[in-house]
Amino acid sequence: MTEMTFFCPTELICGFGIIDRLKDITEPYGKKGLFVMDPFFQGSSIEARILELLEGKEVRTYARVTPNPRDTDIDAGAALCREGLDFIVALGGGSAIDTAKAINIVCSNGGSAWDYVKKEDRPAREITKALMPLIAIPTTAGTGTEATRYSVVTNAAQHGKGTIKTDLIFPTKALVDAQLMMTMPRRTTALTAIDAFAHAFEAYIGSKANVFSEMFSLQAMKLFARSARRVCENGNDREARCDMALCSTLGGLAISHSATTLPHGIGQALSGVTDAPHGGSIAACMAQVVRFTLPECTKKFAEVACLFQPALKECPVREQAEALPGILNQLFHDMTGEPVTMASYGLKEDQVEAVADMALTNYYGDVSRHPKTASREELIRIIHSCL
Amino acid sequence: MTEMTFFCPTELICGFGIIDRLKDITEPYGKKGLFVMDPFFQGSSIEARILELLEGKEVRTYARVTPNPRDTDIDAGAALCREGLDFIVALGGGSAIDTAKAINIVCSNGGSAWDYVKKEDRPAREITKALMPLIAIPTTAGTGTEATRYSVVTNAAQHGKGTIKTDLIFPTKALVDAQLMMTMPRRTTALTAIDAFAHAFEAYIGSKANVFSEMFSLQAMKLFARSARRVCENGNDREARCDMALCSTLGGLAISHSATTLPHGIGQALSGVTDAPHGGSIAACMAQVVRFTLPECTKKFAEVACLFQPALKECPVREQAEALPGILNQLFHDMTGEPVTMASYGLKEDQVEAVADMALTNYYGDVSRHPKTASREELIRIIHSCL
Repeated sequence: MTEMTFFCPTELICGFGIIDRLKDITEPYGKKGLFVMDPFFQGSSIEARILELLEGKEVRTYARVTPNPRDTDIDAGAALCREGLDFIVALGGGSAIDTAKAINIVCSNGGSAWDYVKKEDRPAREITKALMPLIAIPTTAGTGTEATRYSVVTNAAQHGKGTIKTDLIFPTKALVDAQLMMTMPRRTTALTAIDAFAHAFEAYIGSKANVFSEMFSLQAMKLFARSARRVCENGNDREARCDMALCSTLGGLAISHSATTLPHGIGQALSGVTDAPHGGSIAACMAQVVRFTLPECTKKFAEVACLFQPALKECPVREQAEALPGILNQLFHDMTGEPVTMASYGLKEDQVEAVADMALTNYYGDVSRHPKTASREELIRIIHSCL
Repeated sequence: MTEMTFFCPTELICGFGIIDRLKDITEPYGKKGLFVMDPFFQGSSIEARILELLEGKEVRTYARVTPNPRDTDIDAGAALCREGLDFIVALGGGSAIDTAKAINIVCSNGGSAWDYVKKEDRPAREITKALMPLIAIPTTAGTGTEATRYSVVTNAAQHGKGTIKTDLIFPTKALVDAQLMMTMPRRTTALTAIDAFAHAFEAYIGSKANVFSEMFSLQAMKLFARSARRVCENGNDREARCDMALCSTLGGLAISHSATTLPHGIGQALSGVTDAPHGGSIAACMAQVVRFTLPECTKKFAEVACLFQPALKECPVREQAEALPGILNQLFHDMTGEPVTMASYGLKEDQVEAVADMALTNYYGDVSRHPKTASREELIRIIHSCL
């Protein structure tokens, strides 16, 4: 056994309607709080509810949250906190929570958010001072960032993207309340759910998979198999919403203990070249990546296929594994209600090489952790087949 | 979905030969440490290795650790720390780690260990002051206490047993090093492994089982099914030792997020009436408890049976479930190398009622969380059948 570590200091409180717990949780934290919020919720009843639960505190709201959190916005948020705040509450999808996680570091440890991203030519800036309590309240079921040691940052000036990776960045608590996700539109529900599945699945097949990550992956994929189609067909299905909320958090735990692989590598590159949404870009390449990887990963693919179609258990393992690309393609199509192809996100044939090259440079970690190494030529072929 | 919480702030570092990490881990903790140790290791090479890794620190060794940690010993240990220590290292089985966990509370929060056990007529004493960093180093693979919010305490004067339950008691880090377990004698290996399995299994079938506890349970039971027989047959089997070390830690996570049920209720009562070792007392009743519970828990029993005998997957679910008592009995027998009965631990027929009554009083929580409620008469019948 090689060394493996389990670490998630975040208390994950999951349920339906549990947002009310925010009052008791923030009680002992002192008077002054920063409320980092996705601007989508400005003026919403959810915003009003949160502010009501924080009554009696001095709360500053910060809503400069963009889909790809910019270092400049993080630094501006951190500057707000320097007046001596006591805690942070973050409400929104992955961007709001990632913004809050990064603000928490910059506020107490100085510098700029980008300094904490490790680069080839310099290490990440050291974190020496204690962070504030941070309560994460996800409103989508996808990134699982409430349970990870990551925060993705975009360098606004250099148009670069990087990730802060540190055990110190975990939120103190996460309130994973499926009720807040009930009004999520179908497309967002589908695309974030696919992202959550991809985290679990890629962590499961990747070279960093271990006893800890595997159980998070399996449990997340079971919940996804049971409820992903249902939650897209009927957003009011409470049970399915709860399943997907948990699936997302468990997916976060899975990548925090293993990592993403080729679908995230290609998917993120596609989003870099086109404007494809994160979940959609992964959906567009997942089946073809599975096909490419098939001979190297038969047993695990077979297991996953059987989660979706228990009747497959009667078939030989190879047949089970070979069924997976078709199962996923059909499911993603049913969930989103549209064909999920790279062409539908605007990718042109002459951009295929650019996607492959970006995957090999910016997302080489994903490529290298995949159970089958893809050459540049193979990447090009995979991406071509996803058009 | 009812509310469910995941919480384990302990960093679990698992592997073979990873004990060397102790040096770096304690580096930033300050100069003065308490080393709580099972007296079994006094003069051993493991003790020497730990002290070597703590070189440069002022370390006081405390080895007043008994199989059922006494409040008086905990309080005496805490008194030692009050001179202003910086950290605690605990080496041993569940007793040494439970002793250290309780010392950590009493040292900084005063009073006696027994004050922190909630009683019917008074609440548990409040913990208001921060605890010291505690590094737990388990040397058996059974209790999983390195990953739980519990510490079992015996009141030496009243001969009572109770449990401190608090989120504040988790060790800071656990070094789960299978190498330290290589020399564990066969009988200890078997009995502690059975305890680990029982944690996972009981947490799985109990009324408090949830999405989090279930994945810990399943993963622990998979590892047990794969390696329990092997580790007993050949204690030098590294891979099997690693599996059992992880199984134990995951079992701890399972009960920390769910709880034990009837086998622990009866088993602990048996140990109260006779001197049966903990793991043995559970092994002696497990199969009969499963038989008693069979109609209420068919699906889960079937799943567990298939982990041990994959060929059962071809059979109807009921048949799979019905195979479980026989599978467990045979396995426990093979592991310990002896018939595991209550009579073999000295229980007489006229003591059966005493065991039932103790289970219904001291361990009522276990009885009540079991998937099938047992009346006094049924308990007597079960215990009788275990003679």
